[in-house]
Amino acid sequence: MACELCERDGGELLWRDAQCRVVHVHEPGYPGFCRAIWNAHVAEMTELDASERARFMQVVFELEAGLREWLRPDKINLASLGNVTPHLHWHVIPRFRSDPHFPNPIWGVRLREPDTALRDLAPIKKALAQRLSRI
Amino acid sequence: MACELCERDGGELLWRDAQCRVVHVHEPGYPGFCRAIWNAHVAEMTELDASERARFMQVVFELEAGLREWLRPDKINLASLGNVTPHLHWHVIPRFRSDPHFPNPIWGVRLREPDTALRDLAPIKKALAQRLSRI
Repeated sequence: MACELCERDGGELLWRDAQCRVVHVHEPGYPGFCRAIWNAHVAEMTELDASERARFMQVVFELEAGLREWLRPDKINLASLGNVTPHLHWHVIPRFRSDPHFPNPIWGVRLREPDTALRDLAPIKKALAQRLSRI
Repeated sequence: MACELCERDGGELLWRDAQCRVVHVHEPGYPGFCRAIWNAHVAEMTELDASERARFMQVVFELEAGLREWLRPDKINLASLGNVTPHLHWHVIPRFRSDPHFPNPIWGVRLREPDTALRDLAPIKKALAQRLSRI
């Protein structure tokens, strides 16, 4: 069966190495929503070996650190679900009290309309890519 | 403001050490749903230092490994959200195609009634506690 994360980047590519990649997800109301995606088709974190797992989490936490520094969200949400697409990927989601679902998970009930004000994320995407290239 | 994870275990305590603990959550339709909870009141993973983070993730992945071995779920879901309770905790959720929300996240639309068949989870809880005590 075709896997969309095997066939495509899965978002706007910010950075990649031989093992994994980071993409920015265009989701209205969620600036800075990124995904860290393992390049190989693996379903569960415990199918990776300990060093691969540690490396992948280092990428996730580096993303979290950058997003916290540059966006100052009220909370970061991290999730690896993959029920529909069982190809390892981490959602790294800056959450704001004013976002469409807060305090619900983004998969829960939407409570308000997304803010339509456009924010130029180009400098943040560039800074994230630089940060990831240094780890 | 009072924090429920500072005041209470947050579920049925399976194991704890000086830094964190693991509880089993009684959620109809979700046998084996566990949470790994940092003992101190910290909101984000990147507020921990690298060794604390690595230790906490080791606990999460040990839980995942045990739950996969003993329950054989169709997928594991991992999530650290904390929008309502900003005290670090990881949801470690064995997911089954027959569970109430699959393939939706457990916070999404419920698609079916929970299976009311009771399963004796005592042996699995004991095995998880033993597994965690060895790391």
